[in-house]
Amino acid sequence: MRTKEEWMDLALNLAEATIGQTSPNPSVGAVVVKDGILLGVGTHIQAGGPHAEVHAIAQAGESAKGADIYVTLEPCAHYGKTPPCAELIVEKGIKRVFIACLDPNPKVAGKGVAIIEAAGIEVEIGILEERALRLNQHFFHLMATRRPFVTLKAAMTLDGKTATVTGDSKWITSSEARMDVHKERHRHDAILVGRITVEKDNPSLTTRLSQGGKNPVRIILDTHLSLHGAFEIFNEEAPTWVVCGRNAAREPFEKAYPHIKVIQLTTEKIVLNDLLQVLAEENIQSLYVEGGGTIHQSFLQEKLFDECHWYIAPKLLGGQDARSVIGGESPLLMKEAEELEFNSVKQIGPDIKIIAGRKDES
Amino acid sequence: MRTKEEWMDLALNLAEATIGQTSPNPSVGAVVVKDGILLGVGTHIQAGGPHAEVHAIAQAGESAKGADIYVTLEPCAHYGKTPPCAELIVEKGIKRVFIACLDPNPKVAGKGVAIIEAAGIEVEIGILEERALRLNQHFFHLMATRRPFVTLKAAMTLDGKTATVTGDSKWITSSEARMDVHKERHRHDAILVGRITVEKDNPSLTTRLSQGGKNPVRIILDTHLSLHGAFEIFNEEAPTWVVCGRNAAREPFEKAYPHIKVIQLTTEKIVLNDLLQVLAEENIQSLYVEGGGTIHQSFLQEKLFDECHWYIAPKLLGGQDARSVIGGESPLLMKEAEELEFNSVKQIGPDIKIIAGRKDES
Repeated sequence: MRTKEEWMDLALNLAEATIGQTSPNPSVGAVVVKDGILLGVGTHIQAGGPHAEVHAIAQAGESAKGADIYVTLEPCAHYGKTPPCAELIVEKGIKRVFIACLDPNPKVAGKGVAIIEAAGIEVEIGILEERALRLNQHFFHLMATRRPFVTLKAAMTLDGKTATVTGDSKWITSSEARMDVHKERHRHDAILVGRITVEKDNPSLTTRLSQGGKNPVRIILDTHLSLHGAFEIFNEEAPTWVVCGRNAAREPFEKAYPHIKVIQLTTEKIVLNDLLQVLAEENIQSLYVEGGGTIHQSFLQEKLFDECHWYIAPKLLGGQDARSVIGGESPLLMKEAEELEFNSVKQIGPDIKIIAGRKDES
Repeated sequence: MRTKEEWMDLALNLAEATIGQTSPNPSVGAVVVKDGILLGVGTHIQAGGPHAEVHAIAQAGESAKGADIYVTLEPCAHYGKTPPCAELIVEKGIKRVFIACLDPNPKVAGKGVAIIEAAGIEVEIGILEERALRLNQHFFHLMATRRPFVTLKAAMTLDGKTATVTGDSKWITSSEARMDVHKERHRHDAILVGRITVEKDNPSLTTRLSQGGKNPVRIILDTHLSLHGAFEIFNEEAPTWVVCGRNAAREPFEKAYPHIKVIQLTTEKIVLNDLLQVLAEENIQSLYVEGGGTIHQSFLQEKLFDECHWYIAPKLLGGQDARSVIGGESPLLMKEAEELEFNSVKQIGPDIKIIAGRKDES
């Protein structure tokens, strides 16, 4: 006989398999169980499609009556693109509902549970909750703060360098680490780099995994819309949004690149906080900032980031003049450094991946 | 009934408890066992004192006859400060000898085993060998290369910085990480810093552990013997050796600091390779290089190091102009970076300690 945690683990496995493909919706899994027998499984495949509960209850069919349902997120209570799952649960005669975590969306929070409990159905909340929160951390973050979850990503030597004094940077990390970056791109709604990175490296910023994957929106910061040429980011493999200040000449750029979206801010320079507001309105829940060093410095200075993903290669470059992972100017005192905490450290091929989060967010 | 590995584990535990206190001798442990009963334990306490086997066999007394001995290093065969342990083993009627690893010292290697086997005693070599080699890696390194095992140590932010642009560096890492540095000082024969570190930080470079510990020799690089003043390294808490070039004015310095040893090289500048030869002759098996960045750069450029101990604090400082963990000039190409491999990564308090070794030494 499986425990509640084991059934919820299965539901979470289903949800985790859809990370990166459901945005702007969260990833959700559900299983229907009666007397220790699995009757139905479901997962939300993509925005606009049925919710996880709908699939799982449909598979269970008539047997859903009197069964338990395990769902990784509180069932919805509002009429959106689909009818409310909480009502479906009542209608189909489910006996008990196990929920990993409540929905942070103000349109839903607690209302799904209220409908179910009002029908006399037993509800238990909080099974494997931490894992369920982590699974949809980007979604929850947007709901709570109205700005995307921002991850700063860098690949550096053990002495903190991303390029030599001449700018040479190929390659710092291993192919295994670079493959992990493609997995992260798949997981994120959007990726961000500065104009200089485009000019210097001409990256395509697409997700290139042998087994497929979703391309994030490519966001380029270019205050004066001065990028022109056969850059990879201007191809049509993935959407590209170029962000500029109010003085940029928008029309000639849009004429030259009609498939590129221009986000023109109302300020002369690019104000990151304003940009993040715009991205939130565009339903960008997660932003993967790939640098370079000056861009990282801007997000650091404004404290507009949530996590750092640092890939560290086992090599020493040396040189005060080599490019530091974070550029710009240093504060005067060490105590002005931004405090983080290490969330995970793991080996990827010969390299190490460190995930650190903002201390004041924990 | 304990296995061979379990008895050797006990002998290794005894040896490991003396790390840092036996130099220039290796750390060694021994246990005497008969029919699954422990009869004697021994460890080499300090250079000049009896070897581990002598203690263990003495404790076993008459029962040593017909017993097994487990020893972490091949018993010695030469008359040094004590008579050869291999002969003692034969004389006391030991039945079987289990050895973790052979002695790399050319005066001993294989000779101890030969004496024991010639007496018809069964010998088995290689039980928990890797751990035994690691235990005495400094000793083995000196024997094999005739230069000390050199460890570069640094404490940095996650973006590779050791100080702000103004030089402020207090504190990067936690008290837990700083305590670990004192443990490493205890484990090392000598510690090395440059003149600038002395002038800037005035460190005492002693081992300060609440439970005691051994001070390493303090080695200061000062090409022109220009250090003068009430610096902590001139106190008498621990030996201090100052290294200078051939043009330094030695006599006035020695008159001013009669208790300080001066190592004057034959070259104008300090040539690290020459210095390491001198230190090897002085029986310095292990050198702990605490920086600063320019000193680290010199050891890196000359490829005269064996391991890096990096303490990384969970904070971001930012700034190309902040002090990089390795100073000097960058090579032109990333492929010129020195290849290492990560040997261990562990959390110490809120910080991470990474140990990386030279790839060509593995």
